[in-house]
Amino acid sequence: MTKVAVLGAGAWGTAFGQVMADAGNQVCMWDIQPEVVEDIGNNHRNIARLPVVDRLPDGVTATADRAQAVAGAGIVVVAIAAQHAREALEGFRGLLEEDALVVSLMKGIERGSGKRMDQVVCETLDLDQARFAAVSGPNLSKEVATRQPGATVVASPDEATAMTVAQACTTCYFKAFVSTDVVGLEMCGSLKNVTALAVGMSRGAGYGENTAAMIQARGLAELTALGEAAGAQPKTFAGLAGVGDLVATCASPLSRNYTFGFNLGQGRSIEEATRVSKGVAEGVPTTDAVVGLGRQLGVSTPLATAMSHVLKEGLSCRGMIEELFGGPITEE
Amino acid sequence: MTKVAVLGAGAWGTAFGQVMADAGNQVCMWDIQPEVVEDIGNNHRNIARLPVVDRLPDGVTATADRAQAVAGAGIVVVAIAAQHAREALEGFRGLLEEDALVVSLMKGIERGSGKRMDQVVCETLDLDQARFAAVSGPNLSKEVATRQPGATVVASPDEATAMTVAQACTTCYFKAFVSTDVVGLEMCGSLKNVTALAVGMSRGAGYGENTAAMIQARGLAELTALGEAAGAQPKTFAGLAGVGDLVATCASPLSRNYTFGFNLGQGRSIEEATRVSKGVAEGVPTTDAVVGLGRQLGVSTPLATAMSHVLKEGLSCRGMIEELFGGPITEE
Repeated sequence: MTKVAVLGAGAWGTAFGQVMADAGNQVCMWDIQPEVVEDIGNNHRNIARLPVVDRLPDGVTATADRAQAVAGAGIVVVAIAAQHAREALEGFRGLLEEDALVVSLMKGIERGSGKRMDQVVCETLDLDQARFAAVSGPNLSKEVATRQPGATVVASPDEATAMTVAQACTTCYFKAFVSTDVVGLEMCGSLKNVTALAVGMSRGAGYGENTAAMIQARGLAELTALGEAAGAQPKTFAGLAGVGDLVATCASPLSRNYTFGFNLGQGRSIEEATRVSKGVAEGVPTTDAVVGLGRQLGVSTPLATAMSHVLKEGLSCRGMIEELFGGPITEE
Repeated sequence: MTKVAVLGAGAWGTAFGQVMADAGNQVCMWDIQPEVVEDIGNNHRNIARLPVVDRLPDGVTATADRAQAVAGAGIVVVAIAAQHAREALEGFRGLLEEDALVVSLMKGIERGSGKRMDQVVCETLDLDQARFAAVSGPNLSKEVATRQPGATVVASPDEATAMTVAQACTTCYFKAFVSTDVVGLEMCGSLKNVTALAVGMSRGAGYGENTAAMIQARGLAELTALGEAAGAQPKTFAGLAGVGDLVATCASPLSRNYTFGFNLGQGRSIEEATRVSKGVAEGVPTTDAVVGLGRQLGVSTPLATAMSHVLKEGLSCRGMIEELFGGPITEE
């Protein structure tokens, strides 16, 4: 039996911890919030972050002690909010077992540095890339937590690492595929939020499936082109972590990107939408990141560019779509 | 001003006729049903097939006369149910202008012959492939008819033909892209129904976005592999006519494939589902076609194969997913 440490007991960290316990591992959750650690440890639940689970498996324990969390752990899963990852991981430097594999569930780009999560993790923990894996797919936490059938992709530059992690998270309801395309996986997970924002906006403006599907297809084409220019594999974008995650994200009206976009589509200003959505959605800074990446890689990014005009100049949904429609007839 | 003949005044033919009229063409609709022709000609509407439109544009007329319909038409759009196309088109043989372009809106594979619609059209009308174009994308008729923003792909082996047709159907709310990948476009449009059936089934069984997204991503991977083996371009499957159409179709609970699958997912037998869904869904015969094509091209088709076990052996939704999950951990 492998000991798995999960750093961060948010909704996705907790749901993934349950998957790993269901797969037969001994799972120790660590979190910075003592009441969350207590709830998991004493009551076998995480009512604050994942109330949909009545009782976590017996194989799930919790600790607030960093060294205790990772001691003896063959796999360390990192599930911390992207913008806090660097700071939180500094506290674990030097504590991990020498042969531990480190798995990132995080999606996002570090603001300021523009770095991907695989870069942040490997830098902060001084980790060899061959011991790193990223997990991404159409995995809404609540649905994984209620054991609905689903699948994901485990990517590592080292095939054996990907396979070990995939085996450790495969259950009768959760299937893992393996990949070596870490860059593609990370790009899908972080950059899709611009598309989710645009789809939410089109829903808010009252448009239906055709408009949403058009935005998803065009957004995917943009991500794939960026990915190819950055050395990622196009098939990653056409797979579970690309199309799959995009479709699940855009179909879920509960996400902050969707809600934020929806409010913009209904004609609210950025300020009003921010207030109603309780904070800025991840897709907002990501829009700038995509436009910047496109410029850097020489790739055209019409959707992200149109969305940046929405976010900076208050362009309407109709105007955003007209911008997408502008120009001569071309190949896709 | 170009005269456009639209053969078949169903929901999609009528909505597309409206698009072409909005784009500035003179559109003449032909249909076998005299009451439909009368309703369009006299009342400027098609209440039987597209009640969502109160008044068709003035540029839309109708006739029941085949020769009159296509006389002087520079573009002839064929929008007849796939299984009736050959018979209906026989009646137009020799009537078309010599330089007319022929556009197919049809999706499906001819039963018996296994032929694609481009093959059926070119054979029946004795048409040079360079004058043929297929149109496919995320285009739910009702939403196009209410002028919601949307996009489509026009594919022809001849780039100039694709461009002429794309220009003739581009409006302020409908954007056409061009492609030379007719085979890919036809395969996307016809084979996606198996995935729509499986997604409907998972919805009927009570599963949410993760399961639906997984099925869509895996279904798309299967179609893309089949397409590549058949000489189509993978990027067609990742575009509007592939991912785009698949997403719109799977999101629309009104389609017969979705309803049929939904009923199976709820535990109804094939017979019961057929009765409740008012007829067999296109995805049912298409499932056999996909399995057969996979065998012929040496491509593995796990989703279509699992769905054939559903349709032939009464496998449950859970059993279908278990079959998909079976086997060792692999790359996607």
